[in-house]
Formats: sequence, structure tokens, C-alpha cells
Amino acid sequence: MADASEDYSFFGGAWSWLKALPLKVWSNIAHTASKAKELGQDDPRRIIHSCKVGLAITIVSLFYYFNPLYDGFGVSAMWAVLTVVVVFEFSVGATLGKGVNRAIATLVAGSLGVAAHHLAVLPGETAEPFVIGITVFLVASVFTFARFFPKLKARYDYGLVIFILTFCLISVSGYRDDEVIDLAHKRMSTIFIGGATSIFVCIFIYPAWAGDDLHKQLATNMEKLATFLQGFGDEFFKTSDSTIVEDRRASLQAYKSVLNSKGTEETLANFAKWEPRHGRFRYRHPWDQYLKVGAHIRQCAYSIEALNGYLNSDNQIPYEIREKVQQHCKKMSTECSLALKELALSIRTMTRSSAADAHVLNAKNAAKSLKSSLKTGLWVNAELLQIIPALTVASLLVEVVTCSVNLSEAVHELATLAHFKVTRASNHHQPRVIHRGTSNLSAHHAVTIDG
Amino acid sequence: MADASEDYSFFGGAWSWLKALPLKVWSNIAHTASKAKELGQDDPRRIIHSCKVGLAITIVSLFYYFNPLYDGFGVSAMWAVLTVVVVFEFSVGATLGKGVNRAIATLVAGSLGVAAHHLAVLPGETAEPFVIGITVFLVASVFTFARFFPKLKARYDYGLVIFILTFCLISVSGYRDDEVIDLAHKRMSTIFIGGATSIFVCIFIYPAWAGDDLHKQLATNMEKLATFLQGFGDEFFKTSDSTIVEDRRASLQAYKSVLNSKGTEETLANFAKWEPRHGRFRYRHPWDQYLKVGAHIRQCAYSIEALNGYLNSDNQIPYEIREKVQQHCKKMSTECSLALKELALSIRTMTRSSAADAHVLNAKNAAKSLKSSLKTGLWVNAELLQIIPALTVASLLVEVVTCSVNLSEAVHELATLAHFKVTRASNHHQPRVIHRGTSNLSAHHAVTIDG
Repeated sequence: MADASEDYSFFGGAWSWLKALPLKVWSNIAHTASKAKELGQDDPRRIIHSCKVGLAITIVSLFYYFNPLYDGFGVSAMWAVLTVVVVFEFSVGATLGKGVNRAIATLVAGSLGVAAHHLAVLPGETAEPFVIGITVFLVASVFTFARFFPKLKARYDYGLVIFILTFCLISVSGYRDDEVIDLAHKRMSTIFIGGATSIFVCIFIYPAWAGDDLHKQLATNMEKLATFLQGFGDEFFKTSDSTIVEDRRASLQAYKSVLNSKGTEETLANFAKWEPRHGRFRYRHPWDQYLKVGAHIRQCAYSIEALNGYLNSDNQIPYEIREKVQQHCKKMSTECSLALKELALSIRTMTRSSAADAHVLNAKNAAKSLKSSLKTGLWVNAELLQIIPALTVASLLVEVVTCSVNLSEAVHELATLAHFKVTRASNHHQPRVIHRGTSNLSAHHAVTIDG
Repeated sequence: MADASEDYSFFGGAWSWLKALPLKVWSNIAHTASKAKELGQDDPRRIIHSCKVGLAITIVSLFYYFNPLYDGFGVSAMWAVLTVVVVFEFSVGATLGKGVNRAIATLVAGSLGVAAHHLAVLPGETAEPFVIGITVFLVASVFTFARFFPKLKARYDYGLVIFILTFCLISVSGYRDDEVIDLAHKRMSTIFIGGATSIFVCIFIYPAWAGDDLHKQLATNMEKLATFLQGFGDEFFKTSDSTIVEDRRASLQAYKSVLNSKGTEETLANFAKWEPRHGRFRYRHPWDQYLKVGAHIRQCAYSIEALNGYLNSDNQIPYEIREKVQQHCKKMSTECSLALKELALSIRTMTRSSAADAHVLNAKNAAKSLKSSLKTGLWVNAELLQIIPALTVASLLVEVVTCSVNLSEAVHELATLAHFKVTRASNHHQPRVIHRGTSNLSAHHAVTIDG
């Protein structure tokens, strides 16, 4: 605004805009390229997936291009390319789910469409459009409403869409019956070719399994919480500020992503249910238990979110209270961190391990010691206000211990349901039954380690 | 297993299964019907939406059925039905987004496809399939990768899919040039008819606006938190247990759904950005600010989740500490509840109101009073262990006050950006500037009430 000189005319402005254009375009390209590189480095499977989609489409296109059966690139062949584009998804589960949905929905809707077509012709030519119109309206409305049922939505949404589509196409078509059957046959075969190509390429070239992702995500999320808890004790009870500490604080914030993990986990579990036996995952892998474990992890993350609020406040913890709680709090935090790490490891390696139980037990003992330390001895030398942060943190850490106990139980249940391997180490060195203690955290459970 | 009598044979078993079948089928139908009724009552717009989809498909079908221009129900007309089925979504924003994406992607990809088709023919017949194969592979791969860019994914995902689809269809097609142009023309016109019908029916018959939903969801979420905070004080400081209290406890848990609201809000905001000016929402409504407000609401919900943990524990709060904190805690909780309700009302009615500020101020004053009450007078007569729950709750409530302050600021910013109406009441009765106090909650801000 300030540099509006004498020479500044419309052409001058346009000229300087034009002069700046290559630079702008270049910086945009550079920005996009660096962003793309980042996305690729973040998860190289994205690049592989893109090439796989390209490959599948090319295969199907050239198949129809060269196939003498089809007179050039006909209408039916179009359905094959269309099927690849809409069915090919990132994970095997999503691709299989869409493929199966599409195939079955087309088959069922096609048959019903032919039947409806038959019925519509019966009452005579005048009534035909009315009968068809009413049938199409009813089917489209009812099946659209069916998409609101949460269970259908989760697994068969795409199938319902394709059902509506195919039924309407066939029942409305003005073709004669033999033409309809020919059309249906061609459509089915092209959809089969497109779907089969997608599924084949998706499964046999660097497959990305949704189940694998869900499995790893649980472990990663636990490790994120563990990282926070590992650093929290030292950070909260530190005696002097320093800039290096600021950096470490930032690194503790990775847990934040766990708070909003519910949607991703549910989607992955739905995809995983479509996947066949693969790698370490059997046919009826207990994916629902993964969701339960995920819920416990989030519960833990909520307590950690509350704890995090006390990291950023500047507390001067009075000496007496520090002496009373510091050791136990650090112990609870560290042992929970170790327990979470062991649980994450147990999931990653798919082995039953009782290593976590020892840490859970230690954490519970630390909570008990904290309680008895707070019971004995009256404390009179500081203001209540000054001791609040330390006491609150202690109380929240006890909550975290409770969460860890629940989480450990859920992971053990998962280990049983999913038939995790039993390692010799866990069979020998650890007690077979740990009685959940007398603390009021959870007095009514006992963890049985199935050796 | 126990009732395997003498007569129990294969036929007997089959017969009893058959006898039970009608009952089973009937109970399944009854269950589905009651579930459907529930879904419909929950949100009657679901029923309306289903009928609208049925109507749009019927219109398009019959249009092509009766239209003499098309020889029966031709191939191109199929695209119209297909477009309605895949484009028609629950909210106007989603439908418009998909429709616009589909139209523009088809247009651009169609033109580029024709160009690619031209180029492929140039090097001669032998090279043609190779050139086409390589082009299709590159375009499909690059555009599939583009779908991983978060910003493109959020708004143009469907467009990218349709781009890949159309480009491949047209560049691979073995048609002659004039045929390709004819095909492209037909496809465009049918897609236009299908898309226009969808958008018309979606907008002009009981429209469901995503922006409206997002707007209301923020208010509802705040009210859920307010309900919890309203009941929390009495519930936590109650002196005797009763079964009626148990029922009320359950009613406080509505806030839980707020914890996982991030995904829904982001989806709704993306849809809302596609919507034209409607009702009380202008063209460039600040939807991004809604996401910020939503984030503050969730932050508040996390603190409330921590508070909720203390509702279910049986605390015997010593008399001295009760006297010190009860009044202030109840005050903080109630005033935050009132502030949230006022903010929700301000959003619901789209009016600027400073009514919330008074409650926020009261809550902050209660926090200050609590602090000074805890500063004065040493307290010696009970165990630290017994006072922990009350102190923790007090500390968490102070966090909730901080959250409410931030939330109130975010809502005021929203009110300014979205040009909420100014009511005379808020202009007269309230102070124009409230200086955020000397408490260390947020000493460096001042709320300006734009009158």
C-alpha cells in the first residue's frame, strides 16, 4: 500500500504480477513437492498404494483394449474400470469389503430387478410406469433408510448403495427380458473382472492390512502414554527450570493424538473383519476386544490430559509434602510407564507376558504406600493452597494406576482370545496368580496368568 | 442339552425348529421394526431423507422412461440414475459438495482424456497401447497419491476419484474422436440432469443443512457439560446416599459423548463450507471458528471426565475441609454451568450476550475466594488422605473455570466473526469491558464486549 509510486499503473501492476508469477508458481510447486515427500516418508505404503491403483487400472484397461471379444472399448467394459476405481482402497479389508458388497448387492438386486420388471409388465402397458415408479420409490426409500441402522452402516453401507443403484437401473430399463439378462450377465462379469483384479493386486503386491494397522496402533498409543508417564515424574518434581526441559516437555505431548483415536480404531476394526487369515492373525481374530483395549487406553489418556495441566503451572512444592509424595508419585508414574511398555510389547510380539503384571503390582504398591504415608503424621507447616498441586497430581496418578490395572486385564483377555504365544520366560519367572490387593482400587478382581 | 428325550430324532428336531421358525422370524421383524421406529423418532429427518432419495430417483427414472429423445432407457440415462444414487447425501452441503466435485471432475478429466486420446494416436498404431497404458498408469497413480493430501482429502476426495475414473474411461476408449465427443456430451448432460435433480430435491424439500447441525451440536454439547456441572456440586458434597441419587448420577453422564465429538464436527464443517447462504447463515460463515470452539468444549470435557472419577468414590469429607471448600466448589461448578448454558443460548439464538461473562466472573471470583480460604488458617485435625478427594476436586474445578474462560472467549470471537445480533439487553445491563482479574488463571487477557 505504501509503495504506490507515480509509475504504478494498471500495466505496471500487471507486469510486476507477471514477473512475480514464475516465482509464485515455483514456490507453490516446491511447497507441494516437499509436502508430498513428507507424506511419502511418513508412510511409504502410500506411494506403493498409488502405484498399485495405477497398475490395476492399467491391467483392466489394456485387458479390454486387447480383448477381441469386446468390440473396442464397450459399455460393459466401462464397468470394469469403474469397479477398480471405486473398489480399490488402501487396506485389504476395505477393498475386500467393498468388492464383496458390490458383487453380492449387484447379484441380489439384479435378480430382484428382473423380477420387478416382470411384475410391472403384468398389469398392462398403461399401468406399467406407475407400478415401476411406485416400486422404485419404495425400494429406494426403504433401503436408504436401512443405511441409518448403525450395524448395517458399519459393514454393508456400500452394498446398500449398490443394491439401490442396480435395482433401479434394471427394473426401470425399457429392455426386453432377454436383453435385461444379457445386460445383467455382462455387468456381473465385468464387475467380477474389475473386482478380482483389484483384490488380487491389493492382496498380492505389498498388502496393507487394516488388522495389522489396528494392532500396531494400540501398541503405539500405549507407548505414547508410557512416554508421557516416564517423563512426568521428573518433570513435575523438578527443582529448577531450564530451557532444555522446555524441549522435553514438548516431546511429552505425543499422547494428545490418543484422545481422538476412537473413530480410526472403529473404522480399522470394521475393515479388519473383512480380512482373511494373514500373517499372525487367524480367521476369527477378536477385533472387538481391540476396541475394548482402545477404550481403556483412551480412559488412561483422559487422566493423563488432566495431569498434563499441572506440568505447565509453576509450583513451589513445600519441602514436607515433597518428601511425603515425591517418591511414591515418581514410582507410580514410572511403574505405570513400564507396565504400559510391557503391554505394548506383548501386543507387538503377540506373546503372553506377565512382565507387565509385576510393574502393575509395583504401581499398586506405590499407591498403597502413598496412602499410608499420607495417613501417618499430621502435617502443619504449609498452606493448603501450596500443597494442592502435589496432592492433586498424586490423586490423578492413583487414577492412572487404576486405568493401568483395567488396561492390563483387557490386554490379558485379548491375549487369551487371540491365542497369543506363551513364552517360556513368562511361564517360569512370574507368579501364576496375582491377587489384586487390598487397596480400594480394585479389590474384587484377581488376574490369572494362563501359562 | 438337558431336554434330549426319547422322541428327539432328526425329524423331531427339524419339526420343532420349523415350528419355532415363524416365532423367530416374527421376533426378528418386531425387533427390526422397533429399532427402525427408534431411529425415526430419534431424528425424523432420516425418514424425510429416505423419501427424498426415493422421489429423486423416481423422477429421474420416469423422465428417461417417458422422454422420446432417448430410445428406451439407454446407456447414457443410466448415468443419471447412478448420479442420483451416489450424489444424494443427507445434508445439503454433502450433496452439493459431491455434485460439484462430480461435475467439475468429469468436465476437466473429460477434456484431458480427449487430449490424451489424441496424443496416443500420434505415434502410430503399434505404440498406441503403450502410450495409453503409461498415461493411464501415471495419471491414476499421481491422482491416487493426491488423495492422501489432508486438505484435498477433506474437500475434493470424491472429485479426485471421479477424475481418475473419467480420464481412464475416455483415454482408453477405442472410439473415434467424434464418438468420444458425443459420449462426453451425453455423459455430461445426464450427470447434469441427475445432479440437478438431487440438488433441487435436497435443497427445496425439507433441507437438512450440515451448518445447522454443526451449530446446534456445539450448543447441545455445551449444555451437556452444563448439566454435569449443575449436578456435580450437590452430588459430590452430598451427606447421605440414596437410590434416587443413583438415577441422577446416570443422567449426568450425557457429557461422555462430547469426548469423541472431533470427527463429527470436522465432517460437518467440511460439508457446511459447501452450503450457500441459508437461514441465519451467511455466505462466508466462520466455520473454522466452530472447530476452535469445539476444541475448547472438548478440553472442558476432559477435565469433567477427571472430575467424574471422584463422583463414584465414597468419600467421607472431614468437617473442616468441607467448610473450607464446599461453598466455593459448588459456586464454581454452578457458575460455570450457568455460563455454559448462557453461551449455548447465545449460540442457539445467534445473539451476542454478555450474560455469560457475569457467570464467568463469578466463577473466577469463587476460584479466588477458594484460594484465599485455603491460604488463611492452618488446618491440623484430619489426615491428608481424607482431604485429598475434596482438594483434587477443587483443583479440577479451577481447571474447569479456566476452560470456561477460554471457551467464553472463543464464543465471543465467533459472535464477532459471524455477526451475531446485538440485543438491547446485553447493551445496557452489562459492563462493556470486564477486566480479567488478578487471579493467576489468566491475568493477561481482557474481554471486550462489542456492544
